[in-house]
Amino acid sequence: MIRSGMNAPGLDRILFASGNRGKYVEVVDLFAPLGIEIIFGPEALRLDVEETGATYAANAWLKAKAYCLASGIAALADDSGVEVRALGWEPGIYSARVAPSDEERTDRLLGRMEGVTDRYARYVAAFALYLPSGCCIITEGVCPGELREVPVGSRGFGYDPIFAPSGYEGTFGEIPDAIKRKISHRAVAGYRLMDILSGNCVVE
Amino acid sequence: MIRSGMNAPGLDRILFASGNRGKYVEVVDLFAPLGIEIIFGPEALRLDVEETGATYAANAWLKAKAYCLASGIAALADDSGVEVRALGWEPGIYSARVAPSDEERTDRLLGRMEGVTDRYARYVAAFALYLPSGCCIITEGVCPGELREVPVGSRGFGYDPIFAPSGYEGTFGEIPDAIKRKISHRAVAGYRLMDILSGNCVVE
Repeated sequence: MIRSGMNAPGLDRILFASGNRGKYVEVVDLFAPLGIEIIFGPEALRLDVEETGATYAANAWLKAKAYCLASGIAALADDSGVEVRALGWEPGIYSARVAPSDEERTDRLLGRMEGVTDRYARYVAAFALYLPSGCCIITEGVCPGELREVPVGSRGFGYDPIFAPSGYEGTFGEIPDAIKRKISHRAVAGYRLMDILSGNCVVE
Repeated sequence: MIRSGMNAPGLDRILFASGNRGKYVEVVDLFAPLGIEIIFGPEALRLDVEETGATYAANAWLKAKAYCLASGIAALADDSGVEVRALGWEPGIYSARVAPSDEERTDRLLGRMEGVTDRYARYVAAFALYLPSGCCIITEGVCPGELREVPVGSRGFGYDPIFAPSGYEGTFGEIPDAIKRKISHRAVAGYRLMDILSGNCVVE
């Protein structure tokens, strides 16, 4: 039974279905209030799940389902990307696949944005929590902001050094983790997921 | 707050995001224990949602999200298909799109199965319930069975007259609605969804 409050009895551990340790650290921090053990996926099993989905939600669902079915443990997966208005919302779901490293991906995006004045961009994330019962809970989060001209700061990962969230001075490469974990796309999606785990979601 | 038992306080009506009245009637019957009003989508608003997903779950999610965002009301969508082992699990997610009418789709499938002795097939369904909070609950259900050589019975819709569920004599075209609504792919997916709405899902 799900009761109100920050607890989800019966769900005592979750497998994080991703090899990205930066995301794992964020997720552990984000879901700490639930008191659920989160296991780093590759330590338990390593699966190659093809991200054939057309949306973040579909890709997160594919990964979470594969890890849950293979392990028998509830599995949490994330899919996320950066969407740039001036580029017709690209690179979107391909954000992590346009080049082999964070640096190359960032450079490529800055290259496409040379001379472009409309710098509006948004980070988007979807979480999928697939339970052994066959239920899956999917939530999404958006963090609006803008792209800088050059990378600043060394915190975070992905496009963080060139992405400045709306209402803040710095990029996610500069902003302290404690703030990023409150306002980021993953934080918003995570709060929505915690709402449903803690039994507060259905009531609007 | 979600409480245990067959109730989901705060969720008093759901928009059914499909124009298929046969499915709507099934869904109303299936979710009757929840005591939630289910509104036939096209009576409230008619959206054309492109089913670009690679899975049933992704298509159901796309439809439920579109209807929820357009209406502000929780939206329930279904995507389903029949998967035939001898045909490499086709037609699958394209089941409803291979021809314009149920009769033509059924004829086409029987044509492909002429002389094929392995008749194993399964009906698969996914439900997506998208809530205004941005949470989406997705469940799936499978109903194993076999394809008959000719259509029998006039109940149901889709491939029902040629699909005989395992353990039963007749096709879904013959089997009484009361039984179909207990054992079908949509019933299994529906029970899983009701489990989460009634707060019983997380505990395995």
